[in-house]
Amino acid sequence: MDILTFSYWAEITATIAFSATAVLAVSERDIDFFGAFFLGIVTAVGGGTVRDLILDVPVFWANDQSYIWTALFTSIITYVALSFFKKKLVHLLLLYLDGFGAALFGIMATRTVWDLQFSLPVAPVMLGVVTAIGGGLLRDVLAGNKTLLMRREIYAIPVLLGCIFYYLLLTHFPAYQIISGLACIFFTFIFRASAIYWGLAVPHWFKNKAL
Amino acid sequence: MDILTFSYWAEITATIAFSATAVLAVSERDIDFFGAFFLGIVTAVGGGTVRDLILDVPVFWANDQSYIWTALFTSIITYVALSFFKKKLVHLLLLYLDGFGAALFGIMATRTVWDLQFSLPVAPVMLGVVTAIGGGLLRDVLAGNKTLLMRREIYAIPVLLGCIFYYLLLTHFPAYQIISGLACIFFTFIFRASAIYWGLAVPHWFKNKAL
Amino acid sequence: MDILTFSYWAEITATIAFSATAVLAVSERDIDFFGAFFLGIVTAVGGGTVRDLILDVPVFWANDQSYIWTALFTSIITYVALSFFKKKLVHLLLLYLDGFGAALFGIMATRTVWDLQFSLPVAPVMLGVVTAIGGGLLRDVLAGNKTLLMRREIYAIPVLLGCIFYYLLLTHFPAYQIISGLACIFFTFIFRASAIYWGLAVPHWFKNKAL
Repeated sequence: MDILTFSYWAEITATIAFSATAVLAVSERDIDFFGAFFLGIVTAVGGGTVRDLILDVPVFWANDQSYIWTALFTSIITYVALSFFKKKLVHLLLLYLDGFGAALFGIMATRTVWDLQFSLPVAPVMLGVVTAIGGGLLRDVLAGNKTLLMRREIYAIPVLLGCIFYYLLLTHFPAYQIISGLACIFFTFIFRASAIYWGLAVPHWFKNKAL
Repeated sequence: MDILTFSYWAEITATIAFSATAVLAVSERDIDFFGAFFLGIVTAVGGGTVRDLILDVPVFWANDQSYIWTALFTSIITYVALSFFKKKLVHLLLLYLDGFGAALFGIMATRTVWDLQFSLPVAPVMLGVVTAIGGGLLRDVLAGNKTLLMRREIYAIPVLLGCIFYYLLLTHFPAYQIISGLACIFFTFIFRASAIYWGLAVPHWFKNKAL
Repeated sequence: MDILTFSYWAEITATIAFSATAVLAVSERDIDFFGAFFLGIVTAVGGGTVRDLILDVPVFWANDQSYIWTALFTSIITYVALSFFKKKLVHLLLLYLDGFGAALFGIMATRTVWDLQFSLPVAPVMLGVVTAIGGGLLRDVLAGNKTLLMRREIYAIPVLLGCIFYYLLLTHFPAYQIISGLACIFFTFIFRASAIYWGLAVPHWFKNKAL
C-alpha cells in the first residue's frame, strides 16, 4: 500500500470518527434524523470547506464525494445503532479516533496550504487548525452547544503545536515531507490521547488572574 | 406570463415571506431596527449566498439587487407594522408562504447546481437544502435561538425529499424540467403545509431509544 | 506621512483594538489561551474575510500578514496582562478605539467595494457594515455570547449611516474621496463615542409596540 492509498483510508477513518462523534454529541438532544445527518456531514466536511473557500480552490468533496457518503452512512448507522455507539468502550474508541482525525486533517491541511505556497507562514498553521476544528465549531454553533473554544478540554492545542512543528519541518527539511508529516500526526495524536486518558485540562491560572 | 417571469415573482414572494417571518421570529426579543433589518436580509439571502460561495459563482444578489431591496422593505414594513403582522391569520399566512419559499428555493437551487453539473449527485441535493434552510440557520445562530436542526418541527425533511425527487426526475426525464420542478415544489410545499396544519413533528422514537 | 501610510497605521490600530476587546470580552469565561488567541484573530480579521469571500477576491490578510501578527501579539499581551487591560481607563480607551476601528473598517470597505464597482449601491453599504461588525458577530457566536444584533447598544447604526453617507459622497463627489472618507470616519466615530459616553441605547418604543 503506497502513501496515497494509506492517506486516503486514513482520511476516510477520520471522516467516520468525526461524523459518529457528532451524532453522539447531539443524541441526548431533541433532534430528528435530518438534524443528526446534517450535523454529521457538516462536522466531517465543514472545516475543510471553510479552508477551501479561503484558499479559493474547489471544495474538496466536489471532486471526491466519498467523504460525503462516508459521513452520511456513518451518521445513519450511528443514529440507528445509537445504543451500540453509546457503549463505553465504543464511545471511547471514537473519542480517540476523533483525536486522530483532528491530527490528520490539521497536518494534511498544513501540507496542502504549504504546497500552494499560500500566505506563508501564517496560512498553513491557521488553516490547518481551521480544518481540524472548523467542523466541530460549526456543529456546536448549529446545535447550540458550548464550542470547544469555551471549554478547558485540551483539543485544539495539540493540533496547533503539530501544525507549527510540521510547518517548520516542511520549511527546513522539505525532502522529508512524508516522514515528518507522520511524526507530526503521531505527536499531535499522542498529545490529544494523553489529554483524553488522563483527563488533562488547561490549568485555571488564567481565570484566577482575571479576578 | 412565461415561466421565467413566473419564477421571478415566485422568488420575490419567497423573499418577502423569509424576511417577514425573520423579523417576526425576533420581534419578542430586545432588538432594535438595525438588528431586525440585518436579520431580515440575512435570512432571505443567506442560504443562496452560502450556496454561491461553495459553487464559486458570483453571489446571486450581486447581479439582481431586487432580492436585497425586497428583503429590506419587507423587514421595514414588518418592523413598523408589527401588530398587523402578528395577527393570527397574517402570521399563519406568512408561515405557509415561508414553507412555499423553502420549497421554491430548494428546488430551484437543485436545478441550478444540476445545470452546472457540479458534483452530481451529492451537491444538487445538499446545496438545495442549504439554500432553503441556510438563511434560517444563520438567523437563529445570530439571534441566539435554537436552530431548526434542534427542533422536532418538520421543516427541512420535505425540502430534502423534494430535492432528492427533483434530482432523480432531472436525471431520468431531463426533457420535463419545468413540469417536474413545479411538481416537486408542490409536493414539498404540501408536505410542509400539512406539518403546519396538523402540527406534525418527527416522532420521539429516536430520543427514547437513546435512553 | 502620506495618506496610504496613515491609513495603514490606522488599520493596525483598529486591529489592536478589535483583538484586545475580543480577549477582554471572553476573559471572564472559562477560556484557555488557545481560545483567547483564536477569538482575538477571528474578531480582527473575520469581517474582512467574509467581505473578501463574497467579493471573490483573495482574503486581505493573505497578502499582508501584519494584520494577523498584530491580532496575535495583541491577544497574547492582553491575555497575559489582563489585569492591566481591565483597568477602567484602559478598558474605556479600548472601547473608544474599537468604535474607531469599526468606523474605519466600515468606511474603508465601502471604498474598496465602490472601487470594484461591485453591485452598486447595495454592496458597498452592506459589505461595509459586514466588515465592521462581522468579526464581532463571529466572536460572539463562537463564544456563545449574545450578539450585538440582540442588544440595544448603539454600535452598528453609526457604521450603517456612515457607510450610506460615504457611498453618497463617493457617487456625487468622486474627486473628494479622501476628505469625505475622513469626514465619514469622524462622523461614525463621534456617533459611536457619544453612545459610549452617554450610554445611549435604541429606545424601547419598538418592543413596547410589539406587546
